[in-house]
Amino acid sequence: MTAYDDLMAFQRETEALAQVAGRLGWDQETVMPRGAAPQRGEEMAAMESVLHARRVDPRIADWLTAIEPSNLDDVGRANLRHIKRDHDRAARVPAELAARIARVTSAAQGTWAEARAADDFAAFAPTLDEVIALKREEGAALAEGRGIGIYDAMLEDYEPGTAAADLEAMFGALRPKLSELRAAVREAEAPPVLEGVFDEAAQMALTSKLARHFGYDLTTGRIDKAVHPFSSGSGLDVRITTRTNALDPFNCFYSTVHEVGHAAYEQGIDSAYLLTPLGRGVSMGVHESQSRIYENQIGRSRAFTGWLFGEMKDAFGDFGVADEDTFYRIVNRVSDGFIRTEADELQYNLHVLLRFDLERALMSGDLQVSDLEAAWNDRFEADFGYKVDRPSNGVLQDVHWSVGLLGYFPTYTLGNVYAGCLHEAMRVALPDLDADLARGDTSAATGWLRNNVQKHGGLYAPREVIAKACGQEPGEAPLLAYLEKKFAQIYDI
Amino acid sequence: MTAYDDLMAFQRETEALAQVAGRLGWDQETVMPRGAAPQRGEEMAAMESVLHARRVDPRIADWLTAIEPSNLDDVGRANLRHIKRDHDRAARVPAELAARIARVTSAAQGTWAEARAADDFAAFAPTLDEVIALKREEGAALAEGRGIGIYDAMLEDYEPGTAAADLEAMFGALRPKLSELRAAVREAEAPPVLEGVFDEAAQMALTSKLARHFGYDLTTGRIDKAVHPFSSGSGLDVRITTRTNALDPFNCFYSTVHEVGHAAYEQGIDSAYLLTPLGRGVSMGVHESQSRIYENQIGRSRAFTGWLFGEMKDAFGDFGVADEDTFYRIVNRVSDGFIRTEADELQYNLHVLLRFDLERALMSGDLQVSDLEAAWNDRFEADFGYKVDRPSNGVLQDVHWSVGLLGYFPTYTLGNVYAGCLHEAMRVALPDLDADLARGDTSAATGWLRNNVQKHGGLYAPREVIAKACGQEPGEAPLLAYLEKKFAQIYDI
Repeated sequence: MTAYDDLMAFQRETEALAQVAGRLGWDQETVMPRGAAPQRGEEMAAMESVLHARRVDPRIADWLTAIEPSNLDDVGRANLRHIKRDHDRAARVPAELAARIARVTSAAQGTWAEARAADDFAAFAPTLDEVIALKREEGAALAEGRGIGIYDAMLEDYEPGTAAADLEAMFGALRPKLSELRAAVREAEAPPVLEGVFDEAAQMALTSKLARHFGYDLTTGRIDKAVHPFSSGSGLDVRITTRTNALDPFNCFYSTVHEVGHAAYEQGIDSAYLLTPLGRGVSMGVHESQSRIYENQIGRSRAFTGWLFGEMKDAFGDFGVADEDTFYRIVNRVSDGFIRTEADELQYNLHVLLRFDLERALMSGDLQVSDLEAAWNDRFEADFGYKVDRPSNGVLQDVHWSVGLLGYFPTYTLGNVYAGCLHEAMRVALPDLDADLARGDTSAATGWLRNNVQKHGGLYAPREVIAKACGQEPGEAPLLAYLEKKFAQIYDI
Repeated sequence: MTAYDDLMAFQRETEALAQVAGRLGWDQETVMPRGAAPQRGEEMAAMESVLHARRVDPRIADWLTAIEPSNLDDVGRANLRHIKRDHDRAARVPAELAARIARVTSAAQGTWAEARAADDFAAFAPTLDEVIALKREEGAALAEGRGIGIYDAMLEDYEPGTAAADLEAMFGALRPKLSELRAAVREAEAPPVLEGVFDEAAQMALTSKLARHFGYDLTTGRIDKAVHPFSSGSGLDVRITTRTNALDPFNCFYSTVHEVGHAAYEQGIDSAYLLTPLGRGVSMGVHESQSRIYENQIGRSRAFTGWLFGEMKDAFGDFGVADEDTFYRIVNRVSDGFIRTEADELQYNLHVLLRFDLERALMSGDLQVSDLEAAWNDRFEADFGYKVDRPSNGVLQDVHWSVGLLGYFPTYTLGNVYAGCLHEAMRVALPDLDADLARGDTSAATGWLRNNVQKHGGLYAPREVIAKACGQEPGEAPLLAYLEKKFAQIYDI
């Protein structure tokens, strides 16, 4: 056994344990008896403690020292890069600080949920203040001596290789264009709204068919219901959840397709990378690019919604929509709303950009938590043209900050930007794609994504895998062009 | 923090990790996508490796040395006793031997399954030979210098405090009496057999009602289907499985009640013991006493089956059984058969006693694996009066030996013996129990078991908890008296 073999054997066990820990989360959201919650908290903490101890295991440094990277192939060097980054990260954060963050964010989630239920930001503010202070301390430890900012260091946890300045430039170009397009759409005549009651069992049956049509492999996956849809797991056990609402079947279908995008990414990774650092999606942004392109550029396209319209008629009978064109416009209707997760394709990124600016200001100290609610409400009104009516529709709507996810929000929009780039390249590579999609056949599209993005797993850096797939550096232009064209056509502007 | 506090904090984390590992087993048998199997093997191995490292952690010995037991209360001393035994056990078995056993038994299970499917004992014999040799080596390490036999040491894993000689005396008294009763029953006129087709969804609905009537708490549990029914987990997350067969609803109902007995034991333990060594059922024998008394002495009693008869009529309509008395006799019918797990209350223990004698002979070297099949067949014919027709109905029917469970079988009969003792004492304490059971109300019975057995968890030694509950040392006489009275009445002998 060489040092590399020893390191990889150790890492393989760590990856397996991380899968176990992740599945506890799946279990909790789907099948766990509700009375098990207190015990589950201890089980998760115990797994975290085991994983943390492995991440800072001193043998890793010894192995890394003993390995000569030039003796390795590309895969070996990529593994080393991931392991080294994780180890450096764990080593930079003092155990005492990591434990404090874990403790505070664990309690903060409950405080946030109560404050949201009570629509009382003041009840959450002191806790959030504590979280921000701790994350700032962590960010400083991560950035120290590296010539990068605290927020850059936070971003690395979710999107390695992307700096705050890159995002500022990209998002700065997006925001005015999105606002402009949004304003034009709001002045135009809106499509009708879907009405009626849609049997939930029939929704689940069709959602399962949709998942299979998008290439989700149910021999290594499964679909359950959960309050918040998610995808969970890597390798040979990648599970998704969805939800049903009798009045809103699109919520079920597009949640499913979104999560299938995440799951298909994990299932599409080269099986040689199973239980290695390359065997997981490479970043949150690239992950979101897959879920978004499945959901929007493919799933909400005119061609694919034509097929879905027929499927819905088969499942629910005549549901009051005249034809495919009307159905397409209904699916893509732009509606006023406060909630990011319910936002349409056009407005979604404005929600994200707001959070990106506010959380950078919080981290830099330019914005105090005590001023956050007012800052949120001002910015929201500036971007959307109407006032936030209550904190649960505003600053308290997302769980992220309470659990210490700072630097995570921008990956949503980065994923949309990447999806725009990939879609442009995919359409060039597959000029007849719409004919397939109109038959409900996504295999050419998902196959292209598998071969150009998914199979690589962690082999390349996030931005690199997108650039390779597209043949050029990613930027916001393709997403903007796609949105402008799509909504100009739907809204006749 | 005292040394005791440190030890218990460490132990609490270990217990939480053990719960996580156990739940992986539940997941595998119920919801895991079938394609996940190879990855799951690595996940389980990784968890086992973590748990093993904790069991042999050198800090445990330091803590144990630093603790003065006389400063502790009964609970503290009981915790210490469990931790010390587990640590001594882990320390006695060389890591290399433990790893070999894990590797060999993991592969042996597959070899056994294939041999059973092919009805070919010779295909399994070399593997079993290897397992026996390794377990003998392990038993020798466990027994060394303690003045106990190898088989005594194996027993300790499942039934601490019970020696082979105790079981030999008890089982020696049981066997002739059971054979005699069985012979008399076989000469008498048998009750009819249940016939018909029973809707499986209706079986599941009634099985869930049965589980609740036996006090299973579904806020900390759940019922799923699995090929082999089992109970899994301790504390606040105790799940059971059952199965359905359209032709045999009793299989579903009594599997459920049996597993509810196991699960109720775990749920009934004093909540102060959560995630400590006292927070689990104390031994396999005591566990089986609960599952068996729920299933047989309560569930198959004349009074309770009267209620069940009415429930089945409600669920399935008239199913061709005239009255409660006939139903009772059908439920308790003694039938010929080869399979232990399908055996009735009367014959079950004869199956176990056969295995007990054979596995002791294998461990002592008095019996060679090459002679095992013939020895099994001879003994079976002697005890049951007809020949084994094929290995899958004989020596290959149980998984236990392939996975290294030697010393486990006798705990099934010990559990029945304990159930007999508990039932005798419970009937004295609850003279009007039958009136409750006839209404489907088991709460007095299960309440008595909870207060006298279940709540103690691991506080007392296994035999001690039974003796305390019964007010006398346990023995086989009550079980025999119960069986003789019951079957004499049913078979009119």
